[in-house]
Amino acid sequence: MVTKKKKMISVAVVGAGMIKFGELFDQSYEDMIVGAYKACLKSVDKGIDEAEIEAAWLGTCVGSLTRREMLSGTRLSEPLALFPMPVTRIENHCATGSDTIRNAAFSVAAGIYDTVLVVGVEKMRDIPSLEAMVDQTSFMQHLWWHPRGQTPPAMFAQFGSAHMQAFGTTREHFARVAVKNHHNGKLDPYAHFQFEVTIDQVLNAPMVAWPMGLLDSCPTTDGAAAVILTRPDRAKEYSHSPIYLLGTGCATDTFHSHNKRSFTEWPATAEASRQAYEMAGIGPKDVDLAELHDCFTCTELITYEDLGFCKKGEGGKWIEEGGPMMEGEIPCNTSGGLKSKGHPVGATGVAQACEIWWQLRGEAGKRQVKNPAFGLTHNLGGTGSISCVNIFGLEPRSSNF
Amino acid sequence: MVTKKKKMISVAVVGAGMIKFGELFDQSYEDMIVGAYKACLKSVDKGIDEAEIEAAWLGTCVGSLTRREMLSGTRLSEPLALFPMPVTRIENHCATGSDTIRNAAFSVAAGIYDTVLVVGVEKMRDIPSLEAMVDQTSFMQHLWWHPRGQTPPAMFAQFGSAHMQAFGTTREHFARVAVKNHHNGKLDPYAHFQFEVTIDQVLNAPMVAWPMGLLDSCPTTDGAAAVILTRPDRAKEYSHSPIYLLGTGCATDTFHSHNKRSFTEWPATAEASRQAYEMAGIGPKDVDLAELHDCFTCTELITYEDLGFCKKGEGGKWIEEGGPMMEGEIPCNTSGGLKSKGHPVGATGVAQACEIWWQLRGEAGKRQVKNPAFGLTHNLGGTGSISCVNIFGLEPRSSNF
Repeated sequence: MVTKKKKMISVAVVGAGMIKFGELFDQSYEDMIVGAYKACLKSVDKGIDEAEIEAAWLGTCVGSLTRREMLSGTRLSEPLALFPMPVTRIENHCATGSDTIRNAAFSVAAGIYDTVLVVGVEKMRDIPSLEAMVDQTSFMQHLWWHPRGQTPPAMFAQFGSAHMQAFGTTREHFARVAVKNHHNGKLDPYAHFQFEVTIDQVLNAPMVAWPMGLLDSCPTTDGAAAVILTRPDRAKEYSHSPIYLLGTGCATDTFHSHNKRSFTEWPATAEASRQAYEMAGIGPKDVDLAELHDCFTCTELITYEDLGFCKKGEGGKWIEEGGPMMEGEIPCNTSGGLKSKGHPVGATGVAQACEIWWQLRGEAGKRQVKNPAFGLTHNLGGTGSISCVNIFGLEPRSSNF
Repeated sequence: MVTKKKKMISVAVVGAGMIKFGELFDQSYEDMIVGAYKACLKSVDKGIDEAEIEAAWLGTCVGSLTRREMLSGTRLSEPLALFPMPVTRIENHCATGSDTIRNAAFSVAAGIYDTVLVVGVEKMRDIPSLEAMVDQTSFMQHLWWHPRGQTPPAMFAQFGSAHMQAFGTTREHFARVAVKNHHNGKLDPYAHFQFEVTIDQVLNAPMVAWPMGLLDSCPTTDGAAAVILTRPDRAKEYSHSPIYLLGTGCATDTFHSHNKRSFTEWPATAEASRQAYEMAGIGPKDVDLAELHDCFTCTELITYEDLGFCKKGEGGKWIEEGGPMMEGEIPCNTSGGLKSKGHPVGATGVAQACEIWWQLRGEAGKRQVKNPAFGLTHNLGGTGSISCVNIFGLEPRSSNF
């Protein structure tokens, strides 16, 4: 019987870039990919010969549902003229971007490739028909459990109301998430929304699915983001200040509301973060900033608890006390988050990594957190059925290299 | 400057199983997944505690296009009760299955997981509407290059006719591929078709897209297949006769006919196989049997050349001389191939690995090749825009372990 090896990973990030998220009717998928890739190349301090990129991963979700495009890795090779580079397309609902980084990092950690590219991209605004939109937002399945009416707002909202009932959380608590993230987003030139909101505005916005109003909900946004990963022992060839992926976790849970054991927690988030913390050798209190999956304000608040930033049931108290604020214990969504920066599904997790890249390198401008050493990204997809957590740090771990 | 490490991989396969391919109107995606998983578990010589499987990969392509199902890795966790196991969904057109094995293997080679599961699955027969079928078969894209009428038969057939013109290949040469694969398929209890065809039958079958007739074309088939991968130093815990993934390659090329440089070769296949041969430390002449992507008979014949089994232009001669026959130089598609076994997209590459598993272990019954040491699998997707090649052998390589 062989003893299990301690799971460790230490893969360098030497470039990260994205395009400004927004309603990009004037840009095709390909335009957005090119924009993110160019921004990423430009971010490599010492430059990089593109020929040194040996393989790529494309994270994208919605295009192959609504538009019959963005199937297969070729869709990344074509606009970037990367042929014959190997490209894998990954789809994992709203966790697509984070899981794409996870899989690409495995190939580097395995010693198969030295340097690889990850691109996440999504068009959410211009879809071909209302039918396509309904299909997309209802996760339509032609099966007995076909969840008629179970749109994402409805499915997430039931977590909000259950949390209110179980722990006395209020709509004001949720609204504070929106206020914070719009404030941060106004400081992020890449964010879709560039305006502040007040608690009153959030509370009085049109209701979408109680207790989630319009300003509790993230927008539908177009965008793309890219990162370049390499072996840690080659990182300084490309970058003065590389950052390192030190932990990565992924977990699944049931998709269907009628199978869920609880509506006040997402077990997939708790498990994915447990894996990532263990791999990185840190705990939640070591995290200096986090980009969380705030598709709805209640999602962010409950995620504080699932990630261990505060105790279960105390998310409301934690934000009231300033925990996730820019100057708080663990600043959350300094980029504006999905709520203000936007949520182009396949791009979201990769864009979160861009924010950690800027923050750890001290390049986040007006939204800079003071001397962060560890940054965490979190995605939650399929109303809690899939979660990925990645942890980045300033120093490589002694590792498989 | 760090010297590039020699790319090597050595990941053990300790289980492989599939369901009988066919028109499985009576089975859902979930039913097929359960069937393949159970068959795979049963194939593990010494048994395996399911709790030792640490992560999984799901390869599936078409369901999320036509039925809005099989999005995200959760679709594998749910029917197998694998929660909270991490599951990544991979889609890479018709190379989905092979690339899913490739990505899963990277995670084991990286030392992140000891033992992982790969499942490929596809329903091709019962689709919700004619519209869905048209969308699916035309690779519809809502863009300027929208290839109206460019269905897979039309796009592959132009390679057949170009090869005929360039090298004097005949429809009889292509027909020999069908005759061989139907013969082999009749010996494979898992094959969709269980009947022989003659050259005359192939030549006189209704024309689909000249020079490809109905019997030059693979059927649309439902099916699922699964393999279990582990660290080579743990393989003997599970299996008396493990086999090993020794090489894996992947390459992309342009999707669009108007951008292709040639219609007599698939550069993606040549490049993917080059990578895989180099990694495995063998050449084409060392391959003892191969499962090739014979979506059409012309595809298989041209692939002989792209894989280096014979020279460019000599595919017709090679099959005439018996090269790919069961008793030939390199038996090709002993399972019956896509042509006779069927082509459930996401399952195809995984089912090819099952055939290599049986052949290398001497368990292929009436279609057993004599003492094979190396087996190769090949997928080609998106009319040549993506290819994956995996090479399996009987002995592990000195590797990253």
